[in-house]
Amino acid sequence: MLTLYHAEPVANSMKVLLCLHEKKIAFESRYVDLLAFEQHEPWFVAINPNGQVPVLVHDGAVVTESTVINEYLEEVFPANPLMPADAVGRARVRVWTKFVDEYFNPAVSMIGWHTMVRRIAQSLEKDELARLLERIPLEEQRQKWATVAGQGFTEEQLADSRRKIGVSLEKAEGLLERSAFLAGDRFTLADVASYSLIAGAPRLFPELMSKERTPRLVAYLERLNERPGVRAALAMPNKVPEKLRTFG
Amino acid sequence: MLTLYHAEPVANSMKVLLCLHEKKIAFESRYVDLLAFEQHEPWFVAINPNGQVPVLVHDGAVVTESTVINEYLEEVFPANPLMPADAVGRARVRVWTKFVDEYFNPAVSMIGWHTMVRRIAQSLEKDELARLLERIPLEEQRQKWATVAGQGFTEEQLADSRRKIGVSLEKAEGLLERSAFLAGDRFTLADVASYSLIAGAPRLFPELMSKERTPRLVAYLERLNERPGVRAALAMPNKVPEKLRTFG
Repeated sequence: MLTLYHAEPVANSMKVLLCLHEKKIAFESRYVDLLAFEQHEPWFVAINPNGQVPVLVHDGAVVTESTVINEYLEEVFPANPLMPADAVGRARVRVWTKFVDEYFNPAVSMIGWHTMVRRIAQSLEKDELARLLERIPLEEQRQKWATVAGQGFTEEQLADSRRKIGVSLEKAEGLLERSAFLAGDRFTLADVASYSLIAGAPRLFPELMSKERTPRLVAYLERLNERPGVRAALAMPNKVPEKLRTFG
Repeated sequence: MLTLYHAEPVANSMKVLLCLHEKKIAFESRYVDLLAFEQHEPWFVAINPNGQVPVLVHDGAVVTESTVINEYLEEVFPANPLMPADAVGRARVRVWTKFVDEYFNPAVSMIGWHTMVRRIAQSLEKDELARLLERIPLEEQRQKWATVAGQGFTEEQLADSRRKIGVSLEKAEGLLERSAFLAGDRFTLADVASYSLIAGAPRLFPELMSKERTPRLVAYLERLNERPGVRAALAMPNKVPEKLRTFG
């Protein structure tokens, strides 16, 4: 029995949904409504004490962290591989997924918090917000909620995130000069890791990703969007109202 | 031919040195003198464009990032395994190594920069520092050098890092309630990943790690320090003067 607890097909939830659909692994989908703060409900925190999606439950074993989940899926379901056959190739994939987790994703995430999550936080009554903050297991998450409910991130912080997004997109463009996909000639977990971030960039950061500035990346995204796995993952439920969407 | 470019047996260099010694893999050691800024020399940047140690070169293939290098070594040299035999166990190791890379290590690193690197930066002439900064490939590294050469990190930033170190040590103590090592009953890459950070803690943060506060962690560190692999790794060259040492 394979169950994925996930939110909309964007960001970290998309990473695992895309991996599952590309590998054609059957799974039970358990939608967690982030706008209703289900991720902080006791029943969910009992599964993942960090109160974060996605979470995979496989025959009773809980696996957290989207990057770790995707490596797990690759090991347990080797058909339709998303890792290269050689160790050097796998290291190349992991250097990129690590860069996405530590650099690219936090930068895009800050912009998402500042725009989308901020609107949600500011729409809450003070008491409601206080009750919500109290339930959040991770101190860092509580801090981010408090920041966006209040003054928001500073111009300096936002500018630094935009700079990092520019660096990340340029880096991706550079990798695509060397090969058809981010970590070689085949679609791998490296492409899975950054799909959602790259897919949202032309709309959110047109000055950083465009036919003029990053031609290879634009063509690469068009190719990815044709993939049946990508289409299937994007077709998963998305309850976030259009106007609140930051990503894809 | 297996060559490791590394600095002192602390922090990220220690992660790979410890992995190699625990797995009993023969390698050529190439010491990179960080105090002489060799990591920013053109010959080194030609190997790793990020200008960071450690770097593994295996039969001509370059592998960077200590966490990725250790997974690579485990795959290519399966003898004396440092990963569990089951996929759930490997996921457990990776959740911890990811936590170390994204949370525990950056917090300890900030304290290290604020104390040790700061003294080095402040001992340099202005012109020398400017020349040095110009050669650093990563913008984030340049920013950190500029910060410690100037006002240093703020009290708020340092307090937040100390809080995170406390959270990390408590988390490790909690894991040791469940098993003899951080990710199960055997020494794995999870223990390798945080060895250096935990080994330095009783001296640097006695209020956060002690027999009273974290008894399991103290006993665990004593056991680790008896391991021949740990001893061999610690015996690698250390040219940093005693008074400048932050870690182990």
